[in-house]
Amino acid sequence: MTDIVFPSWPDVAPKLISVAAGRAFADTVIRQGKWVNVHTREVLPDHDIAIVAGRIAYVGPDASYCTGPDTQVVEANGRFMIPGLCDAHMHIESGMLTPAEFARAVIPHGTTSMFTDPHEIANVLGLDGVKYMHDEALMQPVNIFTQMPSCAPSAPGLETTGYEISPEDVAEAMSWPGIVGLGEMMNFPGVANADPKMLAEIAATQRAGKTVGGHYASPDLGPNFAAYVAGGPADDHEGTCEADAIARVRQGMRSMMRLGSAWYDIESQITAVTEKGLDPRSFILCTDDCHSGTLVNDGHMNRVVRHAIACGCDPIVALQMATINTATHFGLERDIGSITPGRRADIILTSDLTELPIETVIARGRIVAESGSIKVDCPHYDWPDSARGTIHLGHELGAKDFEITAPEGANGVTVNVIGMVENQAPTKALMADLPVLDGLVEGEGDTMQIALVERHRATGGVTNAFVSGFGYQGKMAMASSVAHDSHHMIVVGTDREQMAMAANRLAEVGGGVTLFRDGEELALIELPIAGLMSDKPATEVAAKAQALGEAMQACGCSLNNAYMQHSLLALVVIPELRISDLGLVDVRTFQKIPVIESVT
Amino acid sequence: MTDIVFPSWPDVAPKLISVAAGRAFADTVIRQGKWVNVHTREVLPDHDIAIVAGRIAYVGPDASYCTGPDTQVVEANGRFMIPGLCDAHMHIESGMLTPAEFARAVIPHGTTSMFTDPHEIANVLGLDGVKYMHDEALMQPVNIFTQMPSCAPSAPGLETTGYEISPEDVAEAMSWPGIVGLGEMMNFPGVANADPKMLAEIAATQRAGKTVGGHYASPDLGPNFAAYVAGGPADDHEGTCEADAIARVRQGMRSMMRLGSAWYDIESQITAVTEKGLDPRSFILCTDDCHSGTLVNDGHMNRVVRHAIACGCDPIVALQMATINTATHFGLERDIGSITPGRRADIILTSDLTELPIETVIARGRIVAESGSIKVDCPHYDWPDSARGTIHLGHELGAKDFEITAPEGANGVTVNVIGMVENQAPTKALMADLPVLDGLVEGEGDTMQIALVERHRATGGVTNAFVSGFGYQGKMAMASSVAHDSHHMIVVGTDREQMAMAANRLAEVGGGVTLFRDGEELALIELPIAGLMSDKPATEVAAKAQALGEAMQACGCSLNNAYMQHSLLALVVIPELRISDLGLVDVRTFQKIPVIESVT
Repeated sequence: MTDIVFPSWPDVAPKLISVAAGRAFADTVIRQGKWVNVHTREVLPDHDIAIVAGRIAYVGPDASYCTGPDTQVVEANGRFMIPGLCDAHMHIESGMLTPAEFARAVIPHGTTSMFTDPHEIANVLGLDGVKYMHDEALMQPVNIFTQMPSCAPSAPGLETTGYEISPEDVAEAMSWPGIVGLGEMMNFPGVANADPKMLAEIAATQRAGKTVGGHYASPDLGPNFAAYVAGGPADDHEGTCEADAIARVRQGMRSMMRLGSAWYDIESQITAVTEKGLDPRSFILCTDDCHSGTLVNDGHMNRVVRHAIACGCDPIVALQMATINTATHFGLERDIGSITPGRRADIILTSDLTELPIETVIARGRIVAESGSIKVDCPHYDWPDSARGTIHLGHELGAKDFEITAPEGANGVTVNVIGMVENQAPTKALMADLPVLDGLVEGEGDTMQIALVERHRATGGVTNAFVSGFGYQGKMAMASSVAHDSHHMIVVGTDREQMAMAANRLAEVGGGVTLFRDGEELALIELPIAGLMSDKPATEVAAKAQALGEAMQACGCSLNNAYMQHSLLALVVIPELRISDLGLVDVRTFQKIPVIESVT
Repeated sequence: MTDIVFPSWPDVAPKLISVAAGRAFADTVIRQGKWVNVHTREVLPDHDIAIVAGRIAYVGPDASYCTGPDTQVVEANGRFMIPGLCDAHMHIESGMLTPAEFARAVIPHGTTSMFTDPHEIANVLGLDGVKYMHDEALMQPVNIFTQMPSCAPSAPGLETTGYEISPEDVAEAMSWPGIVGLGEMMNFPGVANADPKMLAEIAATQRAGKTVGGHYASPDLGPNFAAYVAGGPADDHEGTCEADAIARVRQGMRSMMRLGSAWYDIESQITAVTEKGLDPRSFILCTDDCHSGTLVNDGHMNRVVRHAIACGCDPIVALQMATINTATHFGLERDIGSITPGRRADIILTSDLTELPIETVIARGRIVAESGSIKVDCPHYDWPDSARGTIHLGHELGAKDFEITAPEGANGVTVNVIGMVENQAPTKALMADLPVLDGLVEGEGDTMQIALVERHRATGGVTNAFVSGFGYQGKMAMASSVAHDSHHMIVVGTDREQMAMAANRLAEVGGGVTLFRDGEELALIELPIAGLMSDKPATEVAAKAQALGEAMQACGCSLNNAYMQHSLLALVVIPELRISDLGLVDVRTFQKIPVIESVT
């Protein structure tokens, strides 16, 4: 892979020096802009930037001495020159897009560096899947760094993933050129309990001199938090209030504040800087998860920075949080994060520091986007068949596979029900009385069936249970092979025939999301790569996602983020009730519980 | 050497976690201090610190839950708890002390981390010498990191050093456990001219992920400076005015502001922060060079921080410049530089943040100094004979070796004279008319002889010339084997017999500095290690240095820093005239010139 790694500073130092000294001409000169200096926190008018070999050779008042007849001159015309934006923590799979298509979607928004944790594909394809993502990432015209996923499975013993990530995998990945650290260490109880496997992963990362990503999703700031911090994670993006942010930064971690498609954690935390006056250097912005629709309609890191400014943050401080702060955190500040010599020439031209219109985007010295349009190719990796054919059902499913048999002679039963809560990731552990017809328990009202269909090893396994909260009506079913974090297949429906059809359809197209009603497919998002991603453009995927949402509504579902709710129902690390391939799981006790609690 | 490297965070993470979680007791708890948080720039009263295995396990409001019957409890009693101070760039040899004795001298002043460039010994003993320093450094109870010297010789072609440092040496050293980067890249014309050897050293350092130290000693901030920056040096301590500091930081370098025994570069540069309001994160404090007398009488980094505060810097910002800013710059912020979990437990207790009295010093969890007294051993390396016997004269010298023969028949000559300038490192290229007696040119008035005696290869070579400015009277001579940067032997005297005696005396004691008058030795500093350092305590060396100064005065010299002036007369990189083993050198043109210009 080394041939597609971007040349390093020492690789091109002789060229940089020659241009800066005036002995050679630059490839590109940006003339007469306002230099937004994120080291000093200054805006310096009337500056030029000279670029050669994709890196910055010179920034100063006048680059005419290194401007030759073949030098491409970009007129900044007094606009601000800001460093390309960095997303400090994100999952490409959340956009349902491959790295190439994700890059194509976000480059026009000014994102030139991403720190990505391919955690989802790790659950499906293990280290091989991570490597595919890593390799496609390195092919792109912008910087996509990879954090090696740390926690697959997320909940060992409570689910079976396609593959598991081992400490040996982590150690191996640390030698890959695009790996910058360990992906979010979600197993925070494991760290606090000194789980040898988790500590081995952290140790392999620290010994490689790389950054351990954190994920401490608990409001408890007592000894459990202290123990987690002592374990080594160097950042955390799970804070949701000012006290969370302050606690993390005081302990020497970076507070990563996120604005994703469904995360709104900046406004509540940035007051640590804007009101409490803490040194901003330890605060960083990220998205974590963005849907394709957000990328198409709202933006990416430009949206995040703009939001931070709207929350009262000084524009240059907000830019620091998306540039130099991020670069420093990952040990990359001599490569990215500022417009200074030696760094990759990742530069945005914008005429307003508050509204942040992304007018021209330069990455590695090339104009990659102009006025919102991409100007470069984002090459696709040649994904192997093993990555495309990942929906392995043991057999074609029928209605019978979704039957929940009542105890002999029962006319009614009390069942445990996964109760969804509007706008919240946690579910409620509910109970419902349901009728029995022909020996089978039947859903009723808003209590309908949910199934976890095994899809990694073709075991033919189907775990059946009940869920409430979707509000679906009529005979319908929706199936998704995006099913965090183990990514089997979650099928929710009011009708067992429709459930079987939906599941079989996903097997046919190689994964994705589909919705059937009365035997007809109302919507389909094909996600052929690992059952998680499309290699089609974001606009296409966003349109299909929009159509899916409309189909869900047409079936009676009025939840916000209904699709996300669906895809999280197997996430056996978030309370209270979830479904996995091993059964119905009470996440409060980490115990499996029966579907049928008692006979009424 | 790995057995004496301090255990890493991952090595001891299980212990840290257990203490933080409350499952094990701390080795030491510091109770009820004001936590000076250099990440957030806050002072937080009523905090405890728990330490185990030399690292910080917990910082919070109450460590009683991890305080056991065997836990050592240190009562902070409301004092400030600040991170141990870091000296970001320094030469141990400048103190004429070994690393062990230097450490012993500075630990009571609160210095717990030093970034040292053993440039002087590299000129005498090459890579072996660097390794000895590195190894003794790792034996100490505080953190002494080594920067691999980059420029030996300093002036290739104009002098002959004992050894030369090659790019291969640099690459090899990058694998040593205590190496954090490349020492100051003094050959700034070489970098600006893309000298392949200099760029190879920089590349080896950057590829190892380590920090390239800079040294750009020129007021020219035009293309020469730009070319130097483009070459890769990441910091610079040669700035002397605000514009220097600002220029460096804007270009993405760290501005290292120094207060050494003879350097006073903080007051003139710190206004970039205190008045211009630049983001302080890129500003760092250092000493560069401290004499033993400064260490004994005035302090070390505590003196520097105190001075920065006296110059108007906010105390916590000044502390950041000597702690976290330094740690971040060298990629060590997860190991040192703040009082947070996982870091080495390097902590100072002080009752005043402005005056900064150093009351208790804790390093790696142990109390290493209390009320100015050292409480630990600083082990000595077993220096080999090759490092102790480095004064190799070809033969015992006599007055004849110092004769300067006039052209046949001349009664008087015009000679080139190295003219010293009070309080300045640069010299003036002067001329003087001197008499000829018995065929030999004789000094007259304040124009006296200077000799560069070869001492590395026993060539017997003596370069003779003239110098003015010392004001010596009577029959005397002073010799020093500290003779920057090639460290041969510089002898200055009014009498050739005395010159021979002084030189022979240094050969006898293995190097140092001596002053003879009328056949009697008035003062002697023995520096048996490489002819540069004593392994005696700083107090002894400082007393001898004081006696030497008094002897110089007794002989009529009233210069400030007279000894330093003496030892710099062979520094063939600073204009205008210098002496080397190859002859008299005009540093304005980098040409050798004759001693005798013409016959009068």
